[in-house]
Amino acid sequence: MAHLQETERKDRLVARIRRIAGQVAAIERAITSEAPCSETLHLAAAVRGAVAGLMDELVEDHLRAHVAAPGLSDAERTAGADELATVLKRHMR
Amino acid sequence: MAHLQETERKDRLVARIRRIAGQVAAIERAITSEAPCSETLHLAAAVRGAVAGLMDELVEDHLRAHVAAPGLSDAERTAGADELATVLKRHMR
Amino acid sequence: MAHLQETERKDRLVARIRRIAGQVAAIERAITSEAPCSETLHLAAAVRGAVAGLMDELVEDHLRAHVAAPGLSDAERTAGADELATVLKRHMR
Amino acid sequence: MAHLQETERKDRLVARIRRIAGQVAAIERAITSEAPCSETLHLAAAVRGAVAGLMDELVEDHLRAHVAAPGLSDAERTAGADELATVLKRHMR
Repeated sequence: MAHLQETERKDRLVARIRRIAGQVAAIERAITSEAPCSETLHLAAAVRGAVAGLMDELVEDHLRAHVAAPGLSDAERTAGADELATVLKRHMR
Repeated sequence: MAHLQETERKDRLVARIRRIAGQVAAIERAITSEAPCSETLHLAAAVRGAVAGLMDELVEDHLRAHVAAPGLSDAERTAGADELATVLKRHMR
Repeated sequence: MAHLQETERKDRLVARIRRIAGQVAAIERAITSEAPCSETLHLAAAVRGAVAGLMDELVEDHLRAHVAAPGLSDAERTAGADELATVLKRHMR
Repeated sequence: MAHLQETERKDRLVARIRRIAGQVAAIERAITSEAPCSETLHLAAAVRGAVAGLMDELVEDHLRAHVAAPGLSDAERTAGADELATVLKRHMR
């Protein structure tokens, strides 16, 4: 059961990342086909939003699996919280 | 001891918030004194950075006190993680 | 007429900044009164959003007055664009 | 000359976008190979930073070409500023 959930989670994340890859490819096409500047900007902004959504999901997964999950040791929770605090401070502004 | 740490933490946060209040007052002065537009922009950007730093500190405090701390129940950790995930999803982009 | 518009713009910005100052004061109260951590987080997140909105307004004002406005010299537009690009690169991520 | 500059700009943007595509592929590999959660987070954060840098470049290009450039009509500058203000308000927070 845990295995199935983990597989589903991975499939969902991979699908999300492939959509982002498709959006990145669309920016390249917009630039090489000389699409209007504002169209390219909107495509890049969409990727930005999609990557922020992916980060949200990864951060929440990490928070639940490595800090909040039942059965972790105190040291494991502290390590998980340290890693999360580092990522948030460096990157989530 | 825990009390002292808690008092120190509060004093540090209050000092941080008062600095932000001072920076917000500086934006108002820049606007009423018709300072150059670019100066006002930099002051506002500084407030933005300071508020992001405050958020980082509050998020990390919450993470440590309400999700990672030893001795919490599983339900308390889950509730703490839920609250944190909500704040991050809504506001930290 | 231009003067009136300018006065209105200043009043609007000052009102906006005073609302932000009020929101910052609310964070201080939440911390000194030991409000729940998650409430403080939401108050800080609201300030973050309000400051982002203020930045948007200042950036748009700068863009219109110092880059796009009719009657500017080419050198003035370039200087206005340089300032804006600097602010965006440093602060608007 | 202008053509050469334009070609160079396109090549530079395309190179930048392909680096981002490579970084996105690395996130997928991290997830399918079950790399540590924190490594995946850092990879996603790197993409976030790279997309923000791309946005900065596109925004600055738009600002210079469609708002600040010599020889545009007042109406063209206004339209360019409108588009830029919309993108910034919606996406650059």
